[in-house]
Amino acid sequence: MAKIIGKEIPSLPWQDKPEGYRYPVWRYSLNPIVTRNNLYFSNSIFNSAVVPFRDGFAGVFRADMRTRDQVIVTGFSSDAINWTLNEKQIFKGYDPRICEIDGVYYLTWVKLTDKGTVIGVAKTKDFVDWEELEPASYPVARNGVLFPRKINGEYVMMIRPCDRGHTPYGDIFLMHSKDMVYWGKYRFVMSPVNNWEMTKVGAGPTPIETDEGWLVFYHGVITSCNGFTYSMGAALLDKDEPWKVLHRADSYLLAPHEYYECVGDVPNVVFPCAAMADSKTGRIAVYYGAADTSVALAFTTVDDTVNYIKEHDLIK
Amino acid sequence: MAKIIGKEIPSLPWQDKPEGYRYPVWRYSLNPIVTRNNLYFSNSIFNSAVVPFRDGFAGVFRADMRTRDQVIVTGFSSDAINWTLNEKQIFKGYDPRICEIDGVYYLTWVKLTDKGTVIGVAKTKDFVDWEELEPASYPVARNGVLFPRKINGEYVMMIRPCDRGHTPYGDIFLMHSKDMVYWGKYRFVMSPVNNWEMTKVGAGPTPIETDEGWLVFYHGVITSCNGFTYSMGAALLDKDEPWKVLHRADSYLLAPHEYYECVGDVPNVVFPCAAMADSKTGRIAVYYGAADTSVALAFTTVDDTVNYIKEHDLIK
Amino acid sequence: MAKIIGKEIPSLPWQDKPEGYRYPVWRYSLNPIVTRNNLYFSNSIFNSAVVPFRDGFAGVFRADMRTRDQVIVTGFSSDAINWTLNEKQIFKGYDPRICEIDGVYYLTWVKLTDKGTVIGVAKTKDFVDWEELEPASYPVARNGVLFPRKINGEYVMMIRPCDRGHTPYGDIFLMHSKDMVYWGKYRFVMSPVNNWEMTKVGAGPTPIETDEGWLVFYHGVITSCNGFTYSMGAALLDKDEPWKVLHRADSYLLAPHEYYECVGDVPNVVFPCAAMADSKTGRIAVYYGAADTSVALAFTTVDDTVNYIKEHDLIK
Amino acid sequence: MAKIIGKEIPSLPWQDKPEGYRYPVWRYSLNPIVTRNNLYFSNSIFNSAVVPFRDGFAGVFRADMRTRDQVIVTGFSSDAINWTLNEKQIFKGYDPRICEIDGVYYLTWVKLTDKGTVIGVAKTKDFVDWEELEPASYPVARNGVLFPRKINGEYVMMIRPCDRGHTPYGDIFLMHSKDMVYWGKYRFVMSPVNNWEMTKVGAGPTPIETDEGWLVFYHGVITSCNGFTYSMGAALLDKDEPWKVLHRADSYLLAPHEYYECVGDVPNVVFPCAAMADSKTGRIAVYYGAADTSVALAFTTVDDTVNYIKEHDLIK
Amino acid sequence: MAKIIGKEIPSLPWQDKPEGYRYPVWRYSLNPIVTRNNLYFSNSIFNSAVVPFRDGFAGVFRADMRTRDQVIVTGFSSDAINWTLNEKQIFKGYDPRICEIDGVYYLTWVKLTDKGTVIGVAKTKDFVDWEELEPASYPVARNGVLFPRKINGEYVMMIRPCDRGHTPYGDIFLMHSKDMVYWGKYRFVMSPVNNWEMTKVGAGPTPIETDEGWLVFYHGVITSCNGFTYSMGAALLDKDEPWKVLHRADSYLLAPHEYYECVGDVPNVVFPCAAMADSKTGRIAVYYGAADTSVALAFTTVDDTVNYIKEHDLIK
Amino acid sequence: MAKIIGKEIPSLPWQDKPEGYRYPVWRYSLNPIVTRNNLYFSNSIFNSAVVPFRDGFAGVFRADMRTRDQVIVTGFSSDAINWTLNEKQIFKGYDPRICEIDGVYYLTWVKLTDKGTVIGVAKTKDFVDWEELEPASYPVARNGVLFPRKINGEYVMMIRPCDRGHTPYGDIFLMHSKDMVYWGKYRFVMSPVNNWEMTKVGAGPTPIETDEGWLVFYHGVITSCNGFTYSMGAALLDKDEPWKVLHRADSYLLAPHEYYECVGDVPNVVFPCAAMADSKTGRIAVYYGAADTSVALAFTTVDDTVNYIKEHDLIK
Repeated sequence: MAKIIGKEIPSLPWQDKPEGYRYPVWRYSLNPIVTRNNLYFSNSIFNSAVVPFRDGFAGVFRADMRTRDQVIVTGFSSDAINWTLNEKQIFKGYDPRICEIDGVYYLTWVKLTDKGTVIGVAKTKDFVDWEELEPASYPVARNGVLFPRKINGEYVMMIRPCDRGHTPYGDIFLMHSKDMVYWGKYRFVMSPVNNWEMTKVGAGPTPIETDEGWLVFYHGVITSCNGFTYSMGAALLDKDEPWKVLHRADSYLLAPHEYYECVGDVPNVVFPCAAMADSKTGRIAVYYGAADTSVALAFTTVDDTVNYIKEHDLIK
Repeated sequence: MAKIIGKEIPSLPWQDKPEGYRYPVWRYSLNPIVTRNNLYFSNSIFNSAVVPFRDGFAGVFRADMRTRDQVIVTGFSSDAINWTLNEKQIFKGYDPRICEIDGVYYLTWVKLTDKGTVIGVAKTKDFVDWEELEPASYPVARNGVLFPRKINGEYVMMIRPCDRGHTPYGDIFLMHSKDMVYWGKYRFVMSPVNNWEMTKVGAGPTPIETDEGWLVFYHGVITSCNGFTYSMGAALLDKDEPWKVLHRADSYLLAPHEYYECVGDVPNVVFPCAAMADSKTGRIAVYYGAADTSVALAFTTVDDTVNYIKEHDLIK
Repeated sequence: MAKIIGKEIPSLPWQDKPEGYRYPVWRYSLNPIVTRNNLYFSNSIFNSAVVPFRDGFAGVFRADMRTRDQVIVTGFSSDAINWTLNEKQIFKGYDPRICEIDGVYYLTWVKLTDKGTVIGVAKTKDFVDWEELEPASYPVARNGVLFPRKINGEYVMMIRPCDRGHTPYGDIFLMHSKDMVYWGKYRFVMSPVNNWEMTKVGAGPTPIETDEGWLVFYHGVITSCNGFTYSMGAALLDKDEPWKVLHRADSYLLAPHEYYECVGDVPNVVFPCAAMADSKTGRIAVYYGAADTSVALAFTTVDDTVNYIKEHDLIK
Repeated sequence: MAKIIGKEIPSLPWQDKPEGYRYPVWRYSLNPIVTRNNLYFSNSIFNSAVVPFRDGFAGVFRADMRTRDQVIVTGFSSDAINWTLNEKQIFKGYDPRICEIDGVYYLTWVKLTDKGTVIGVAKTKDFVDWEELEPASYPVARNGVLFPRKINGEYVMMIRPCDRGHTPYGDIFLMHSKDMVYWGKYRFVMSPVNNWEMTKVGAGPTPIETDEGWLVFYHGVITSCNGFTYSMGAALLDKDEPWKVLHRADSYLLAPHEYYECVGDVPNVVFPCAAMADSKTGRIAVYYGAADTSVALAFTTVDDTVNYIKEHDLIK
Repeated sequence: MAKIIGKEIPSLPWQDKPEGYRYPVWRYSLNPIVTRNNLYFSNSIFNSAVVPFRDGFAGVFRADMRTRDQVIVTGFSSDAINWTLNEKQIFKGYDPRICEIDGVYYLTWVKLTDKGTVIGVAKTKDFVDWEELEPASYPVARNGVLFPRKINGEYVMMIRPCDRGHTPYGDIFLMHSKDMVYWGKYRFVMSPVNNWEMTKVGAGPTPIETDEGWLVFYHGVITSCNGFTYSMGAALLDKDEPWKVLHRADSYLLAPHEYYECVGDVPNVVFPCAAMADSKTGRIAVYYGAADTSVALAFTTVDDTVNYIKEHDLIK
Repeated sequence: MAKIIGKEIPSLPWQDKPEGYRYPVWRYSLNPIVTRNNLYFSNSIFNSAVVPFRDGFAGVFRADMRTRDQVIVTGFSSDAINWTLNEKQIFKGYDPRICEIDGVYYLTWVKLTDKGTVIGVAKTKDFVDWEELEPASYPVARNGVLFPRKINGEYVMMIRPCDRGHTPYGDIFLMHSKDMVYWGKYRFVMSPVNNWEMTKVGAGPTPIETDEGWLVFYHGVITSCNGFTYSMGAALLDKDEPWKVLHRADSYLLAPHEYYECVGDVPNVVFPCAAMADSKTGRIAVYYGAADTSVALAFTTVDDTVNYIKEHDLIK
């Protein structure tokens, strides 16, 4: 039995696995949970990240406005399902992740600059006052995802370098920092291997620490004659040398099958950005963008997912 | 209060704005209003234009047949919602607009020739007999849209030059003519500015004359990894020098959100081709192609739209 | 009245043409008939082929697994609508066709090799034991479709050469063999002619022998700004020189109009791979892949289709 | 014997055809005649046009500066071989042509605007004072070439519409104007037919009037795996309806064979922009850009060329 | 010491290796040996093949005419350096190879058809009367090269499938035939491995039989930002199973270094199409197209080349 | 009079500016100085860097071998013109720069890894023993160029992020490090501005310190229909905040005009990688790759170049 190392989250949202359902991840029955209706003047709200905060939950949400400008806003919820979003834009950019390290919440996101997108980094203690740090990369990079604690005394961030457009390739690398200002010791983590992710892979939620390694969900992309399809995979990384992949599922755990995932601004997208895990029950709630249009929720347990990864293991 | 300058159209179709709805344009609740079922052997009917005609309405419709040949047919209606289409093909081509000038109805459309598409021009008084004039352009151009009266003694037409394929760029220009045969004095009108229209813009319905300028709806295109998304924007042009943009909304007024706009031969298309305005009430009915599959209808008022443009004004 | 030359299939699935319906091919009302739910661990099941077998039906199904690996599995049915699929993968590859010649069932499919896809050939008498023959092509080719009997003493196969990607062109050729090992005497059959198939055409089901020629259904592709749309066309080929097209419909007979054809892993795909014909009644059941996601069923009669082809004949 | 209709040019540069040389066009032995050394701060001088002027010759030259900005400058010569260029830039843009009509010299060129290139039009009587007229096109067009007299009372200009980049297609059209302000009655003239010009064709020098029709030299482009190769072809157009091609050579008359044509900023370019013809002797001097780097000179006679066109006639 | 198995060719052209030259292949000092001047109306002559014939030599030459039509003509020579070409076009197409098998000369070439290029096959005994056989492939394939004797009772041909354009990939396959009509038993031979050939590889001259295997020269292509560069490599294939590569040089043996190889219609091309070997001396004369413009000649010996292949062997 | 801050290099190679020559940079009359003949088995030697070393000069050279593998080798010279290269490959990769900081020579180059190219960093004191440090970037980046001293206590490196191919864009950024292991504080330096560099710009030689700022030579790329052309530009950067451009020439200082720059593996390339400056005389020797084939040398003085930059200043 795999164990989650971390806090308990008693109010984690949950639905039991449907009877007869044979896969490790299942959808929330009332998806999507956040839509354009959650925020005036938004075109779509998706690819967003949430964390436990005080006695409830807080989140950073990608809102594409009716100008199709991309901004980050905050949101709050008592049950992590019904969210109240704040109209104030905290940063320009997209695909935010949020990661608590030692009581500080670090936001990483695809920051827009005049000269291309970089990995923006900011921190807050209250989701109101934000301090922006030096960006963690030069252009062009996306999918910067921090580990939730220092490893061997250093901050560690996954990153996916890319080009200026709808990049047709992508590997996950990671890098180290003593101070969140200077980064180095770049290491390769993973490339596309199987068909479902053959175009590119990129990091997803903040890794979940387990006794078997860092559990990471990530997105993989396959290209059809009609464009990209984004699905969600999973792997276990070494605790101390997290660029070493211990186990990795050969197949996706979630792919666009429902209409809200198949129809929207970008058809056929499942894009996970956050996963909250309750160390007591082993339950995990995964938040993912659906069709670049809304935020949806899925469930799994650490056992379900770790077992699946090991049974469908790419790493021999 | 903005005022429409022009005729009254007492029988203009109408539904009140839904309660609590905060945007300037809202959809007809029974959309789409014209589908492939309106014409035998058609694959799809969309991107079509209508005008008041005698005691009802007439229209020119883009019908793509089951050969996927593109033709223009006429249609008639007493309420501008329920349309009877005529199987006779009046011209080959697509994306027709219809514009009344001094009692004559001018059709402009993307005319197919052996050597590429041009702006075809034809006129009629009765929607039965059509006289074709010289094309208004050499290949390749699309989205030729006439102003509904001469300006400074000259006909004025907007036009969007393009390449031979699914052109990845597009600006709106306009040009002048004394006789609808020779055209010149080309002027730049607008380029893409904001994200929602970043790939290209093109003229839409015949401009509506108001006391604040020419109200134009137009389409803008954004490119995702899965292709183009077409939305509708709006601007006000100078009455006498209509290539001067007085005000222009920074955001779309209508974008593909409903399934009939998101699913079809070309997913995610809202493409306005006509707008009828009632000078008495200020009501405007916008006709747009949905997903390159059917014709849909939306409503606004001159106040709703002009106020929106000014509040979200790109022009400083 | 056109006549089918071949066996009777009393248990052929059937629904009468809906009243008032004016086209030659109509859909089964309970489509799709095979979905990802028919096979554990499959991502999608589509582009599959069936034949009468013993006192029921057997089929070869394209199953894309959750790895997005493409495999061929067998399936069996008593009514040709409800199918039981076998988890055992008989070959790697996709888009299988199955053709009975003299009591032997020949499978042709897009076989994956290290060096590109080829036309794989295998045979069976019982759908359990398969003998693989030499591939019928070098890389890269797809859509290898056998005729159901020797013609002038030789096996004949249609084939569509292509490139390594989502090939933007495609013609149908055919070739001859005395022994299913060596192939030659390549002949051109057809190219795209009309808009609905302008990007490429490829063979579909095993040809149906009629007194008017070989009735072939095939797929044609049109490219929009958002990718490919696949539809189904039909033609009649010369009985003795089957590379000669006697009649060919100018328009599609089936195109993606229903949601299960428009939404899925590849939106807007109708891809026919099998057609069973009952010589007694002239009824034909066409099996086609829908949106690269599921298998659907449509009906026609030899008269409906042959008449349509002749009335909408491209060949003058 | 074909006859040139027009002025005598006694001082036309000339070298006799080399003995044994069997083609209709031969090079000047001291090519190139104008290089970057003719103008300080120029990167290259090419694609330029000249005319008889007063008792010598004047020209408009494309000079790409060391910024690689493209400008038009004037030049003067007594022998049409040795040129003195004027550093003053008269217009921004490239590929100028110069055409005398009734004592006025009309310059047409690819004018740069903020919104793309158009056909600029300007006139002068002395090559010092220039009056710019309305551009003859909206963006994007190139290779605007005037006929040297009105035809049926109207100015006639050839034009090649294109896209915003290194356009991979191109046909020659022509258009009419009563006043050089408004243009219309667009007519197709020619498309690529043979391999040597398969990518695109565009007008070259001002047409030469002969008793057999308008003699036009033009450029054609073929695409190899290493880019474009530009060569020069020739045709005869109808005197009164100049969009009708009477005769057209099936092959080029000059192609990049010499090092100064094969090596330079753009390898493998022969791009004719001017041809002066002496009606007395039938001699023709053709000026062409070589490798986008320098100006070169070639010779022919009206007989040589007209005979060649007729003997190698594409038009049956 | 490697030995050539085959005829003696006493009059094989020859120059000794330049002193101090350290590579296995060296150029003829008077290159190129055939140019456009060898044939009236030709634009270029290159990629051509020669064989001993009667008491001298005969060849098949690719001539691109001034139309840029591609044709095959014959040529004859007493010394294999000075060639007289025959203006008569024997076939349309390009890149011919010529192979003697049992006293019959087989021509294979890239035959042009309405529907794409195929491997044309023809035979002659006298280079005057040619009998065309069935093409050896459907479209699109190039570089069909026969082995000079049957192997295990079957003709064997190498082939490089490709797409319709300047194909950006390419492997060498081979296939078997009992009768030069039907082909099958396709086998993979080689893919690009090293940088110098990374884009594609294709067969070159008729293989040379040696006691160590079939010695094949082939071309490999690397892509720079300015297009393709073609060089010549070499390998030894198994005598009985010639799809098995025994040894293969890791580097090119000849690449475009001289101006006549670097400048021309396609810069940077060395494309070998023939190699004549004298079994007595071990001398080999390689004929190659240079810059798609002319034919050049290089020398080696079987020892030089075989030793080089083994010393720089890719196969471990 | 601008002054170079740094060492004297009495043996710096030199030729006076040719009489009448009006540009700031002139070529060495015996170019190229290093060719493929300098190293056995090399295909080409270019894009190389040199520094004063002991009583002569040392260099790091890009050698592309006949496999077209790219390696770095060392070379030594007493006069900086005649070079002896060492066959031993010190690193895999290309485009090396060498920079002395406090008596240590730092090599930066485009290091090849399994997962793309990175900025490799190594150091030596003797050009024999090399210690490799952590790479300074994740993939993909090129043109990493160090400043020759710490600025505000930190190492500073220019870098040009790119994509995996022949990247069609490129800006110069810089970054800081306290230890050459961790990098951060990324700053934008410059983008393409003028036509001659419109596709991309990248850093060139180690910056030269002057009393007016850091003098940098860099390369800029323009794209023609036949590919890229590389030229050399120059700018002055702020001494303390070197991402601030004080002055920048609007035009190139050296572009491919000579045959050895226009003809070769990549036609039309001038690519500077090193510049040695003598503080006593103000003389500068610039080393640049020519046509991706050989190393060439050019001269200027700090006055010539600084004056030129200021007279042709982009920065207003």
